[in-house]
Amino acid sequence: MRGKMKAIVKHHRGYGAQLQVVDIPDIRDDEVLIRVKMTSICGTDIHIFTWDEWSQGRVSPPYVFGHEFAGEVIEIGASVSNVSVGDCVSAETHIVCGTCRQCLTGQFHICKKTNIIGVDKQGCFAEYIALPAKNLWKNPSDMPLDIATIQEPMGNAVHSVLAGEVLGKTVAIISCGPIGLMAIAVAKAAGADKVIALDINDYRLQLAKKMGATHLIHSMNQDPVEITKSITSGDGVDVVCEMSGNPAAIQQGFKMATNGGRISILSLPSKPVTINITEDIVFKGLTVQGITGRKMFSTWQQVSSLLESGKVDVKPMITHRFSLSDFEKGFELMIKGQCGKVLLIP
Amino acid sequence: MRGKMKAIVKHHRGYGAQLQVVDIPDIRDDEVLIRVKMTSICGTDIHIFTWDEWSQGRVSPPYVFGHEFAGEVIEIGASVSNVSVGDCVSAETHIVCGTCRQCLTGQFHICKKTNIIGVDKQGCFAEYIALPAKNLWKNPSDMPLDIATIQEPMGNAVHSVLAGEVLGKTVAIISCGPIGLMAIAVAKAAGADKVIALDINDYRLQLAKKMGATHLIHSMNQDPVEITKSITSGDGVDVVCEMSGNPAAIQQGFKMATNGGRISILSLPSKPVTINITEDIVFKGLTVQGITGRKMFSTWQQVSSLLESGKVDVKPMITHRFSLSDFEKGFELMIKGQCGKVLLIP
Amino acid sequence: MRGKMKAIVKHHRGYGAQLQVVDIPDIRDDEVLIRVKMTSICGTDIHIFTWDEWSQGRVSPPYVFGHEFAGEVIEIGASVSNVSVGDCVSAETHIVCGTCRQCLTGQFHICKKTNIIGVDKQGCFAEYIALPAKNLWKNPSDMPLDIATIQEPMGNAVHSVLAGEVLGKTVAIISCGPIGLMAIAVAKAAGADKVIALDINDYRLQLAKKMGATHLIHSMNQDPVEITKSITSGDGVDVVCEMSGNPAAIQQGFKMATNGGRISILSLPSKPVTINITEDIVFKGLTVQGITGRKMFSTWQQVSSLLESGKVDVKPMITHRFSLSDFEKGFELMIKGQCGKVLLIP
Amino acid sequence: MRGKMKAIVKHHRGYGAQLQVVDIPDIRDDEVLIRVKMTSICGTDIHIFTWDEWSQGRVSPPYVFGHEFAGEVIEIGASVSNVSVGDCVSAETHIVCGTCRQCLTGQFHICKKTNIIGVDKQGCFAEYIALPAKNLWKNPSDMPLDIATIQEPMGNAVHSVLAGEVLGKTVAIISCGPIGLMAIAVAKAAGADKVIALDINDYRLQLAKKMGATHLIHSMNQDPVEITKSITSGDGVDVVCEMSGNPAAIQQGFKMATNGGRISILSLPSKPVTINITEDIVFKGLTVQGITGRKMFSTWQQVSSLLESGKVDVKPMITHRFSLSDFEKGFELMIKGQCGKVLLIP
Repeated sequence: MRGKMKAIVKHHRGYGAQLQVVDIPDIRDDEVLIRVKMTSICGTDIHIFTWDEWSQGRVSPPYVFGHEFAGEVIEIGASVSNVSVGDCVSAETHIVCGTCRQCLTGQFHICKKTNIIGVDKQGCFAEYIALPAKNLWKNPSDMPLDIATIQEPMGNAVHSVLAGEVLGKTVAIISCGPIGLMAIAVAKAAGADKVIALDINDYRLQLAKKMGATHLIHSMNQDPVEITKSITSGDGVDVVCEMSGNPAAIQQGFKMATNGGRISILSLPSKPVTINITEDIVFKGLTVQGITGRKMFSTWQQVSSLLESGKVDVKPMITHRFSLSDFEKGFELMIKGQCGKVLLIP
Repeated sequence: MRGKMKAIVKHHRGYGAQLQVVDIPDIRDDEVLIRVKMTSICGTDIHIFTWDEWSQGRVSPPYVFGHEFAGEVIEIGASVSNVSVGDCVSAETHIVCGTCRQCLTGQFHICKKTNIIGVDKQGCFAEYIALPAKNLWKNPSDMPLDIATIQEPMGNAVHSVLAGEVLGKTVAIISCGPIGLMAIAVAKAAGADKVIALDINDYRLQLAKKMGATHLIHSMNQDPVEITKSITSGDGVDVVCEMSGNPAAIQQGFKMATNGGRISILSLPSKPVTINITEDIVFKGLTVQGITGRKMFSTWQQVSSLLESGKVDVKPMITHRFSLSDFEKGFELMIKGQCGKVLLIP
Repeated sequence: MRGKMKAIVKHHRGYGAQLQVVDIPDIRDDEVLIRVKMTSICGTDIHIFTWDEWSQGRVSPPYVFGHEFAGEVIEIGASVSNVSVGDCVSAETHIVCGTCRQCLTGQFHICKKTNIIGVDKQGCFAEYIALPAKNLWKNPSDMPLDIATIQEPMGNAVHSVLAGEVLGKTVAIISCGPIGLMAIAVAKAAGADKVIALDINDYRLQLAKKMGATHLIHSMNQDPVEITKSITSGDGVDVVCEMSGNPAAIQQGFKMATNGGRISILSLPSKPVTINITEDIVFKGLTVQGITGRKMFSTWQQVSSLLESGKVDVKPMITHRFSLSDFEKGFELMIKGQCGKVLLIP
Repeated sequence: MRGKMKAIVKHHRGYGAQLQVVDIPDIRDDEVLIRVKMTSICGTDIHIFTWDEWSQGRVSPPYVFGHEFAGEVIEIGASVSNVSVGDCVSAETHIVCGTCRQCLTGQFHICKKTNIIGVDKQGCFAEYIALPAKNLWKNPSDMPLDIATIQEPMGNAVHSVLAGEVLGKTVAIISCGPIGLMAIAVAKAAGADKVIALDINDYRLQLAKKMGATHLIHSMNQDPVEITKSITSGDGVDVVCEMSGNPAAIQQGFKMATNGGRISILSLPSKPVTINITEDIVFKGLTVQGITGRKMFSTWQQVSSLLESGKVDVKPMITHRFSLSDFEKGFELMIKGQCGKVLLIP
């Protein structure tokens, strides 16, 4: 018997979640028990909290959700050798099979049998979490917990932006949620020439400016295609990072791309989107990339380097902190879109 | 006064074309006059002949059309140094500006100010053609004319297939017109493991077999997604070359691709197509590529090598030959789809 | 007590080896016991057998050596899930740490803490071998043992040849030992235009011809640089695969490469080599690649595909078979260079 | 008769050069006459001035040398369309053939028939220069002349640094002449983590610091291999840019590279260099790249972007300015190495 801990439990098949006292999890031989010292709310957690269509089809309450965190290893399984008790760690959220064709060629992030922490198995909105040792990423012992916990979503930003050349290019970031905001800073750090931030939320556009965007476009009040053209002397944008999931915004993304450009899509539009393949893909010689997860672990190395060297400063987009018990305040803010990243302190 | 020549003229804004006698063209200082010894019919020529919506908006009759050919240089302009009288040549169809951002980075095939031979300017369905010297590709003097004339469309096949890794991969070719048929042979020559040909035309599927397809799928009578899955032990296809322009076929192409795969689209669907971006692009980590023209001139070098070394044998797909005066027979066959490549002999 | 088995033991710090009866090895929880059904001799085994300088500094007799094999899993450790009893397997020879910077970015083949089977730990010249499950590669159950055992060295050939573009290129293979011979066939399968084989041994040049070389050069009797120039109309070779380790041959390799070419070096010259960096690397814009091991496991997938599809036929270079007890006959032949691949049957 | 102009003439086959009055050059139909407004001294000019072995074998006095400049177009040939009178321009120094295998695949910078401005033909140390229009690069009209003139050598820096991934990597720049100094700033702008500058000249190491180097190594007083190891926690350097031409420094460059790293060599060592291929290339899986010239014109676009966006500030390394008549003072400083970039004002 391991004792009890506080955790945010998705307790029923409906809206909301509850703070409960649950068992501290056991670990297997290849797992590690971690004391969670900081955690943060992802868009996926909002889907689960609000019980949208996707989450209804995917998750099985009751269970502890959440997957972004920073913590300390307090116990290791018998066969674990890559981390030690006392190590500061965060974790890659995708637990992969290791034996499918994708895994066998090192494309772990698109493993066909991926299990996701906080979705398919117990998550980190809790005082403790048990995880496979192979999923852990060691943090420098002096890395602030605020920073350490956002490495996972920053990995999505890095994976999207750095999926092709950036230096000297014009980059458009469509939608300025936390990942989009980090993508702005990553593009700047990678030598992008102009970084154009698009959103329909003024609060977020102001955060975009703080993160280093050189141009802001309010997509409701302005015509994104016309303005990006004028910013680029008629050429169009070299790189589009699509993070909105909005069909109209996606179509604008295709229109604003220049010949030979790329559009890297991280968003998950809830319905199929109509694309003018002939004009917007073929004649342009465009490259469209689906982006999912983080490359294991080269994306994590890039994230670490950008943070440790100070090239990317994520602080401006960490806007709120609550104790774990006050989690509902954080979820409310996220639902309203009046925040950057929201942290929860266990 | 240069004298007269026979030519197929798109004579009016309507269906059809006429054999007429027209002036042999003059050449500028940077141009070359070529005696056309063999020419062939492209799908684009069919669009112009049948006067479809695209051609109504693009071409300006009366003018000579056609752009695939093999010929002999008979006169060169004052400033021409890269070819000589007597050289056997074919030509890159895209005449590029050389000064736009794309041209300045060597991406000539996606130049934003491209003029196309036989579309935007006088073509090769004639006894003579005048062309910029920089667009010519020298053929070995012993290359059969039948082969020399199909290098341009074979370039489309090569550009599509070789836009990513092929060796050891499963490649699906959607639609077995002449370019699709050549794509089959190119994929084989590049070391593809399985090459799956899809069409709804039995005649073309039989040609696909002759070109080396390892599996044939009749997309009307069979379920392409299910069959490709079973061929690949459930994994899906690594590379999809989409050459049909048909929305349903394109959607199937996206469905049959495996995680981390690529879909290279050469076709020009006449309407926008609805794509399930979330399932078929993002979660799969798919790469979608628009393919247009041929890389200048690395694609031409690859075409030459594949033909000269005998690695690709295009003869099985050259099914018909007519004299230039009998051009209407060739166009009829193409419209019916009961042919591979159709040659016209001036 | 597991019982006893026959094995070839490097029994002392000197020339030769002995057939001995030794213990069948135990397995750990993450290991597998394999009955060796076929094994083959690598150049590395010759170094160990002849007790050269390298082996004196690296290996610790007495121990069982050998690392190329095909076998059947007969027992699996408690935590093994990727293979089952009865599976036909071969093995990746490099046992990697999984935690260094290289491993964390998927570059397992250049892990800085690699342990090599048959060098740093017990090998496969025996009736049984115990190995980490993660190093196993499953073979199709109908793959001939002769073929299955040479996948590991064929991986070196594949890794070297496919380290850059090959289709339509002229490829020179310097030295026609077993790996060079397989490299010839791999280059052909990948669409190479001309494949030039170089050696100073007529027996091996004849094997090179059987493997598909389009040109043979006897490097003692002919001038390799002059002849490759004339084969390529003065241009030089696009791709050089250096497998000789001979300083003069390496220098010739650099000289025969064309501007923008690449030279992929798999050989291990025993002394530093003098290179004209200015003329042969910088002005040429050459790329030089060090090649070690096999990419895990994308190289293995390519090997499998090339063998299963019949694109590469390795049979012509498998020239000799002996029973394990007759191993000395095999080593003798290898030392004389009068053979292709030599198999040993336990 | 065009009139006369002042020019620095390499007047004899020996040390030195002379300010002379010579004819203003004529232009051909595809050429442009430029008034030189700023020019700068390259290491190549020093070779020619001091009449070293290389220049004795390559250049033919008397002729005007120099190739780095900024100027204004004052006359264009009949067939010129890409620039206009009044345009501010600099020029790519390599005049390429356009028809060799390298040019036909867009690898103009390694054209086998390159003519170099100021080496093989009349240069820019003069009031006017005539050049092929296709070699010109248009500068923004408000670009300072000091900056515009150093774009060509900055192109060498950009080509070297950006020949592979940089973001998050440790980059070592061996030798801090003007190109090395600019390489430091380029590496920083491209997101390099640590940038280590090596030289044996304290003056230049101080400039390196101003350009943004995070670590300085005096290669005479310190052991570069040991120190780079300690900077990288024992791992070694990811990217080495070799710009010294010194055999010992080159060998150190190979030693300091980590497994899977790259070494990009721009320098031209005057003698062959002995390399430990086995340890320093093969086992490491190293990539060695020869770097020559600038990619036409993608490198120029990158240079422009880095300068215009302010990501690279080259001012700290522009240390001296002289009038064209005082050229000897500039050459003297360069010979002593007590300078960064030296400008000459016509």
